[in-house]
Amino acid sequence: MRTEIILSGAGGQGLILAGAILAEAAGIYEEREVVQTQSYGIQARGGASQSTVIISDKRIKFPEVRHPDILLCLSQEAYQRFSPNLKKGGLLVIDEHLITLDLNHEERDVVVLPFTSEAERLGRRILANLIALGAIAELAKIVKVSSIARAIPSRLPERNVPAALEALQVGARLGEINKIIQL
Amino acid sequence: MRTEIILSGAGGQGLILAGAILAEAAGIYEEREVVQTQSYGIQARGGASQSTVIISDKRIKFPEVRHPDILLCLSQEAYQRFSPNLKKGGLLVIDEHLITLDLNHEERDVVVLPFTSEAERLGRRILANLIALGAIAELAKIVKVSSIARAIPSRLPERNVPAALEALQVGARLGEINKIIQL
Repeated sequence: MRTEIILSGAGGQGLILAGAILAEAAGIYEEREVVQTQSYGIQARGGASQSTVIISDKRIKFPEVRHPDILLCLSQEAYQRFSPNLKKGGLLVIDEHLITLDLNHEERDVVVLPFTSEAERLGRRILANLIALGAIAELAKIVKVSSIARAIPSRLPERNVPAALEALQVGARLGEINKIIQL
Repeated sequence: MRTEIILSGAGGQGLILAGAILAEAAGIYEEREVVQTQSYGIQARGGASQSTVIISDKRIKFPEVRHPDILLCLSQEAYQRFSPNLKKGGLLVIDEHLITLDLNHEERDVVVLPFTSEAERLGRRILANLIALGAIAELAKIVKVSSIARAIPSRLPERNVPAALEALQVGARLGEINKIIQL
């Protein structure tokens, strides 16, 4: 089993941090094989930024993500750029308020969730990344939410850890509710 | 110009952090194209751990590092495993006290520096990663030491930033002195 994930959005949304946390959760706390990649430069600066994570049960020989199984988009530009590459039958997760779906081209199941408005409710818009991570963990069952929670403290200043853990739980609930609705 | 760098050692030596800082320094503060990769899992757990950074003036199409231009080794196992792959004419940088050179096979120029003993002198062995980064920046001129210094605060808790910046400068001096000796 090999799962390829792209977390995409704009610079400053904390997607590189989210990718690093996801990688650590799977690699260190669940002992899977993980390769995590992030790009800086033109690719990252102009609008669309991305962090890729590959989680596998076997040694990862090809570390590139071409057609992700799971794609998170937190900006319109990231959605336009990365969503055409989603694997057939893959999971597309987007922010409710930041993205307008291109309905002419959208034939897939898409999970639309209010990450940024939930983050604003928690008082910090930057938490949208961890809310999204919690939701994806619940929706796709790639790693346990508890493993992500364990990886958070090593990546954030101590004072931000409680809010980050709360954001993760809010996201996990969003993911859970969405699954129940879809049944 | 494309430069491939591997920072290798044992888990817990902060090489993933060092790779992330180097990537941010080049990508955000020098506007180069950068791809940074880190592995978790068996590859990372058992002894040898690595963080790879590719810095380029053009868009990076192939994000894998097979034959690095620059290789840092902070453990014997990392040295055994990664040094055979160093590009011909590449720069091999190793810790003076942690690694015994395999002289039967070592025909290259190797830069041997006391990263961990300098880190111990500063009171924190974990700083060896940033001392090494400062030295490599001076030796190879891949990024400015000042760009690395700018990238440090976003990656470390505030209370650790002054010691990290000092470690970087200690490393830069080591690199500089080494270049003078070799002339």
